[in-house]
Amino acid sequence: MTTSHRIAVIGGDGIGPEVTAEALKVLEAVPDATFEQTHYDLGAERYLMTGEVLPDTVLDEVRGHDAILLGAVGGRPGDPNLPPGLLERGLLLRLRFELDHYVNLRPSRIFPGVATPLADSVLAKGEVDFVVVREGTEGPYTGNGGSVRVGTPHEVATEVSLNTAYGVERVVRDAFTRAGARPRRRLTLVHKTNVLTHAGAVWSRLVREVGEEFPQVEVDYLHVDAATIFLATDPARFDVVVTDNLFGDIITDLAGAVTGGIGLAASGNINPDRTAPSMFEPVHGSAPDIAGQQKADPTAAILSAGLLLDHLGHHDAAARVERAVVEDLAARTAGGPRQTAAVGDAIASRAAG
Amino acid sequence: MTTSHRIAVIGGDGIGPEVTAEALKVLEAVPDATFEQTHYDLGAERYLMTGEVLPDTVLDEVRGHDAILLGAVGGRPGDPNLPPGLLERGLLLRLRFELDHYVNLRPSRIFPGVATPLADSVLAKGEVDFVVVREGTEGPYTGNGGSVRVGTPHEVATEVSLNTAYGVERVVRDAFTRAGARPRRRLTLVHKTNVLTHAGAVWSRLVREVGEEFPQVEVDYLHVDAATIFLATDPARFDVVVTDNLFGDIITDLAGAVTGGIGLAASGNINPDRTAPSMFEPVHGSAPDIAGQQKADPTAAILSAGLLLDHLGHHDAAARVERAVVEDLAARTAGGPRQTAAVGDAIASRAAG
Ligand SMILES: CC(C)[C@H](C(=O)O)[C@@H](O)C(=O)O
Ligand SMILES: CC(C)[C@H](C(=O)O)[C@@H](O)C(=O)O
Repeated sequence: MTTSHRIAVIGGDGIGPEVTAEALKVLEAVPDATFEQTHYDLGAERYLMTGEVLPDTVLDEVRGHDAILLGAVGGRPGDPNLPPGLLERGLLLRLRFELDHYVNLRPSRIFPGVATPLADSVLAKGEVDFVVVREGTEGPYTGNGGSVRVGTPHEVATEVSLNTAYGVERVVRDAFTRAGARPRRRLTLVHKTNVLTHAGAVWSRLVREVGEEFPQVEVDYLHVDAATIFLATDPARFDVVVTDNLFGDIITDLAGAVTGGIGLAASGNINPDRTAPSMFEPVHGSAPDIAGQQKADPTAAILSAGLLLDHLGHHDAAARVERAVVEDLAARTAGGPRQTAAVGDAIASRAAG
Repeated sequence: MTTSHRIAVIGGDGIGPEVTAEALKVLEAVPDATFEQTHYDLGAERYLMTGEVLPDTVLDEVRGHDAILLGAVGGRPGDPNLPPGLLERGLLLRLRFELDHYVNLRPSRIFPGVATPLADSVLAKGEVDFVVVREGTEGPYTGNGGSVRVGTPHEVATEVSLNTAYGVERVVRDAFTRAGARPRRRLTLVHKTNVLTHAGAVWSRLVREVGEEFPQVEVDYLHVDAATIFLATDPARFDVVVTDNLFGDIITDLAGAVTGGIGLAASGNINPDRTAPSMFEPVHGSAPDIAGQQKADPTAAILSAGLLLDHLGHHDAAARVERAVVEDLAARTAGGPRQTAAVGDAIASRAAG
């Protein structure tokens, strides 16, 4: 039986549209699901031409879809016509916040045959296969803060991290549930409770309290600075990590790097309550310097489409996509670099087969 | 000619006193300087016995010294009698803030013969020798913030990052000065200007403005998440990094890890205006699990003492310490692990020689 889904597609900026095209190719190829796509032209180019970032009417339309596939958002760095953060705040973060994507899911795995920046002695410590559950709707990402005396020697700027028991508890429960369903059943809280004591207290308390419902899950804690050390020296120690929005941003880029590059790092911005569509996107950015040249690796976008399939209940199709990627990666060592579309074609045909 | 200096010594917790003893051994060994030491018994044990963290009278006494040598601060994790952050806030951060240590200097170098977690392909990219200038007196470390409805499902906690043009400009100028004096003359600002737009604007503006006084220094910018990627995949790209207090905390632990472990990572909390003594300490923590066992590597503490010598104008003695460490590290590969004191002895005798 084939189910049909309506998905909103936001290719975005730079390499975003290219890699998204390959992810769509793969979604078209797998059995059991068909996709009715609505493409939204959003991002730097639209803003520069029209001054619009994410009109409310577009957001309303997007809400009517079953899921969102996003490429990457962000203009050319230093473009004087693009105030820093305008697109990030107005488009990407607005979608995450308005659609209540409180679980930002970022799996990290070293796939067989993939080169990593780590020494053999580190890789020998064990299989690397963990997932970061990054909070997606609060922390230092709320845009709370401000400035006075801008541009003068007396300027003062604040950034306020907002942390609520409501917001922390729900993401912590999600992380415990995921940890309980994995073979190692281990959850690591990453924070900086010795300095950010107010926020840290909420996180520590809720990990302790929710943990009582999951006695089978072993819990530990790492300061974010120590977590980066382990990501570089013993990434196999991690199973499920739960962390705040900013720490999650930082450690998932590092996690992507140590597991073979953010060309392979997928993510889901998930609304587990399904009150709005979830959004799937590669962890990498828009890389304007290589845009339009068919040089970008679409694998992260394709793996993100796999997470989308999983979220929509197509577990077999999701497993096919992951298997197709694993096979393609294992075959890669032989040839030289392929074009973006060639990688997409190869994975799509494996996923279809 | 020999100069005598008064130094305040705070061994602190865990392995702190052990590694500090070795650093003192090396300071005693080098020519040209003698040290009159005042030891202050501060840290978890004193707090647990007396309830005192850093009495004002002690702080006043400490101010009367030429420099401070600190081991490590922090009790046993999860000790119910030690509220999280109490020692960090009350002792370590209080010293940094009260003594206006606005330059937190953290050099990173891959010393010859030292094993790193990085693959040969990464190491082949070039020599790794950079320094992070971490802001030390503001950002998310001010303790600004609070909580309401603590312990309830309605708890809300904030953490406020405070950023002033005054505070940012002075550390940025210090970083430019250091960059200008190095052969590569390159400065990288690390921040998250696309999300933390208010603070980011101050940092970006002042790097631009102060940079006009240093036309010979090449400037670039990395988001903190991207910076962690480069630290793992191409650390040779960095020369001088300037960054905020929290980002600096995170990336310097990672920098320590990728350059051979934080057993080697030194730091100086520097007051460049010399209105109060600067403080020198290893980047690593108190590691209570191995305390008192002579297992800790004192090299980071010894290199920190080298930074102290440099700060007090003993550039030759400082160079001796670094050379002694380099020689000792190169000789290490042969034998098995040595005791903390044995490492100190070996480096001290090379530095004296
Ligand atoms: C583009 C930026 C706003 C975003 C973030 O910081 O969340 C990105 O780095 C990510 O990790 O998805
Ligand atoms: C102990 C802690 C407060 C401290 C910090 O966060 O600055 C430490 O991690 C460091 O880097 O010196």
